[in-house]
Amino acid sequence: MADWKNLDELDSFKALGGVKRVSLREVMSGESGAERVRKYSVPMACGMAYNYAAKEVDDTVLEALVKLADEAQLQEKYKELYNGAVINTGENRLVLHQLCRGQLGDDVIADGVNKRDFYREQQQRIADFADKVHNGEITNEAGEKFTTVVQIGIGGSDLGPRALYIALENWARANGKLFMDAHFISNVDPDDATAVLKSVDVAHAIFILVSKSGTTLETLTNEAFVKNALTKEGFDPAKHMITCTSETSPLAKNGGYLDAFFMDDYIGGRYSSSSVVGGAVLSLAFGPEVFAEILDGAHEEDEAAKEADPLKNPDMLDALIGVYERNILGYPATAVLPYSQALSRFPAHLQQLDMESNGKSVNRFGKPVSYVTGPIIFGEPGTNGQHSFYQLLHQGKTIVPLQFIGFKKNQIGNDVEIQGSTSQQKLCANVAAQIVAFACGRENENLNKNFEGGRPSSIIIADQLTPKTLGALLAHYENKVMFQGFLWNVNSFDQEGVQLGKTLAKQVLAHDTEGALTEYSRLLNI
Amino acid sequence: MADWKNLDELDSFKALGGVKRVSLREVMSGESGAERVRKYSVPMACGMAYNYAAKEVDDTVLEALVKLADEAQLQEKYKELYNGAVINTGENRLVLHQLCRGQLGDDVIADGVNKRDFYREQQQRIADFADKVHNGEITNEAGEKFTTVVQIGIGGSDLGPRALYIALENWARANGKLFMDAHFISNVDPDDATAVLKSVDVAHAIFILVSKSGTTLETLTNEAFVKNALTKEGFDPAKHMITCTSETSPLAKNGGYLDAFFMDDYIGGRYSSSSVVGGAVLSLAFGPEVFAEILDGAHEEDEAAKEADPLKNPDMLDALIGVYERNILGYPATAVLPYSQALSRFPAHLQQLDMESNGKSVNRFGKPVSYVTGPIIFGEPGTNGQHSFYQLLHQGKTIVPLQFIGFKKNQIGNDVEIQGSTSQQKLCANVAAQIVAFACGRENENLNKNFEGGRPSSIIIADQLTPKTLGALLAHYENKVMFQGFLWNVNSFDQEGVQLGKTLAKQVLAHDTEGALTEYSRLLNI
Repeated sequence: MADWKNLDELDSFKALGGVKRVSLREVMSGESGAERVRKYSVPMACGMAYNYAAKEVDDTVLEALVKLADEAQLQEKYKELYNGAVINTGENRLVLHQLCRGQLGDDVIADGVNKRDFYREQQQRIADFADKVHNGEITNEAGEKFTTVVQIGIGGSDLGPRALYIALENWARANGKLFMDAHFISNVDPDDATAVLKSVDVAHAIFILVSKSGTTLETLTNEAFVKNALTKEGFDPAKHMITCTSETSPLAKNGGYLDAFFMDDYIGGRYSSSSVVGGAVLSLAFGPEVFAEILDGAHEEDEAAKEADPLKNPDMLDALIGVYERNILGYPATAVLPYSQALSRFPAHLQQLDMESNGKSVNRFGKPVSYVTGPIIFGEPGTNGQHSFYQLLHQGKTIVPLQFIGFKKNQIGNDVEIQGSTSQQKLCANVAAQIVAFACGRENENLNKNFEGGRPSSIIIADQLTPKTLGALLAHYENKVMFQGFLWNVNSFDQEGVQLGKTLAKQVLAHDTEGALTEYSRLLNI
Repeated sequence: MADWKNLDELDSFKALGGVKRVSLREVMSGESGAERVRKYSVPMACGMAYNYAAKEVDDTVLEALVKLADEAQLQEKYKELYNGAVINTGENRLVLHQLCRGQLGDDVIADGVNKRDFYREQQQRIADFADKVHNGEITNEAGEKFTTVVQIGIGGSDLGPRALYIALENWARANGKLFMDAHFISNVDPDDATAVLKSVDVAHAIFILVSKSGTTLETLTNEAFVKNALTKEGFDPAKHMITCTSETSPLAKNGGYLDAFFMDDYIGGRYSSSSVVGGAVLSLAFGPEVFAEILDGAHEEDEAAKEADPLKNPDMLDALIGVYERNILGYPATAVLPYSQALSRFPAHLQQLDMESNGKSVNRFGKPVSYVTGPIIFGEPGTNGQHSFYQLLHQGKTIVPLQFIGFKKNQIGNDVEIQGSTSQQKLCANVAAQIVAFACGRENENLNKNFEGGRPSSIIIADQLTPKTLGALLAHYENKVMFQGFLWNVNSFDQEGVQLGKTLAKQVLAHDTEGALTEYSRLLNI
């Protein structure tokens, strides 16, 4: 059994604070910089690499991080997790999203079933369903093929699946894999559902209602919107809707759906893209084979995360460097900057994944911790961000560690050459340039034009954004967040911080309020 | 002439640090909280209000902030700005985006012309052009009406206009004002242009090329993409494109466009939504009257910002509280949380506006400042964010001040009642609940379910998101950023921090690199 200790109880963490800081500007200059780029790289799944040359580490810092990983028993804790320990202590649950993607260790038996078999069965049921929709065995009431899929969900039932859909939409179109176009309804704002419903061909749309509990306010409200719209046009909602929910939820057996696909309590919302929550919409949109490839890529990265040596484990190393930046160097935030328009909503997914998992103040035993935990996460795709918030990143008073993602090839293949280079080359040249600009800076007598440098970044480089590399990216960040949760000794798999707002909102709607809440309700005409 | 001093040279700032801190949890409880909500509110333009009851201020803190505003001469500095002083010292330029919206003070004569007349003339030229497109006087080569407009621009030529378009698209559709649908191409990633071009009816599309300098790499590259696509389909690009640029740019008189509309050096990219940069696309999409209403709303807020008393000036007060939070309370970031799906990209615009303006380390005279300046800005619409990163905001170790935006009515009018309330009521109930949850928290013996509270927020409340209230919102944040720039004594109107990356990217493309940059180029196959 692993020994769960607070970060500041670890000798290796105390030692880390005493290790000499690295001057990024110095070490990234000249031949030393070139050598670092060659050396400070770890292979990831699917031919990808995590390059951390421009992080504020050197062999001494890395040695200290290796000791920290060892003392924090990161490898053992991951092993316990994938072998089915109750890692989500607050909710007394196993944590099994990786098991959706493949078997990493022992069989996990819970609730009397082999969970890997359960996840595979659900994946297969979705694959069969999607195939039948695509080949016209399952049609609308007029016997016509469904052409559109609309996901109704919020939080983890929205952000991850939406980010993955957007990430692969162009790839799928270019590769003849776009079977259906997908849309998403999430917000309780009535204009969200109304606008999406106006933009789709309702007669040929399948709606996926996604709620594990079957009680999510936003999702049930939006279901009513959709049912109204279908009924109004003379369609039977039960012939246009499927649900992804838990077997025990009120949605599971209510007969109002074409079919129901199941998840369980061992996969949290923000980790659920690998389950039916992502599986249904992505299999319908791109075909089951593409969804299976996403899972394969993720599984390959999960396997890479089992490596004991942090210097050969990209997910663990990324986690360790992040904790060093947060708890020793004192940086409050991390920016995720993919140089790919297809990843435009990937930072929003990571924002939930990271901030909801590790934005905690108590450890896994419910005791307050006296060190900072999860950072603020934000980001936009490059080069767009360069023309937006990079000013602060380069010359602001707050240093923000950066996580770049770059691809050698674009997804569609279409390109244009101007001034001797293609757009893809310009895109890649920009990310390379930014890393060095942030790290090394450049002196100027006019301080307004001076760049101090010393701003750390890493880059994940892949050949192309494909289903497999996308799956590996997804898993990389999930595993990074998991390892950081281990280091901070927090439970990365609950989210008690979302409860109070829900409770108070119900009171407002019941007009059971007092004090400030009554006044705000009045101001907002509730 | 105003006296430009560093923040830490001001006696009132030194005094501010000694003022007793407010316990938000205490003051926002019970009747005290109710009274604050009633009292701590400032009217804004267009019937809106800025409510700061849930900020960590009381009458004593406010008194100190009033002194700070006075000593920092915020009112005088704004007056100098709108009367045409060279406020953008680094680039030796006037700052006139407010003048696009209306006359605030003296006539501003620059480059031999009355600038208000110049901006009005350009606005009128766009209105005439848009009317001709809408009534079929200007058509494609086949004599058919244009139905789509595509903006090609990046940074300020993209984020603001895109956010405003998305903000009003549903409103316009519901009110019969959607003349043309709009799309945006920004990223140098070739897949961005390719995907947008595939999604639009190129034969009936007008493209707007937006670049003040006429030299923006991304924009010129994407122009080539568009021209290729048009030519390939047998259309003459010159009959499908207009440009928004400066009169001195290479684009201004090259004959390759249906028409050219002009901006000048006195309006920075991130402030250019009020100029032709926003005017062309929004007038084509929604009609010139709607664009004029946006400007009217913005002008009304600009007028409100002239008020000398900070307690009656919503923009100045928001700025002052923000500086108090950043420089005295030590918070590193601010989240913008609009409870409106239509404002889904408004936080991305504010991210540029704020971080590019005030993410600086030197004052307006090029001397280093020893205090922190602009914060990290991020945000997503509610209620979506509640199911994502709010966990960290409620229970994380880093306190993030919040800026809520709420509307009493939705834009489209369609709604559904479930469990006794409409979706719009649920949306509003949630934002009210969040403010109180963040401020007051709630004790629980199980610390994992405990909410400490003490997390500050403000809310801007409007009746509905319309062209006028949207304009006022836009101006509010621009003015807030301006006043904060005055307080920090930085130049909020240049962006030297974006230059080094551009320079290095050019070197990469010219294969004129060494050290780390050569290695990164190799890794990315450039």
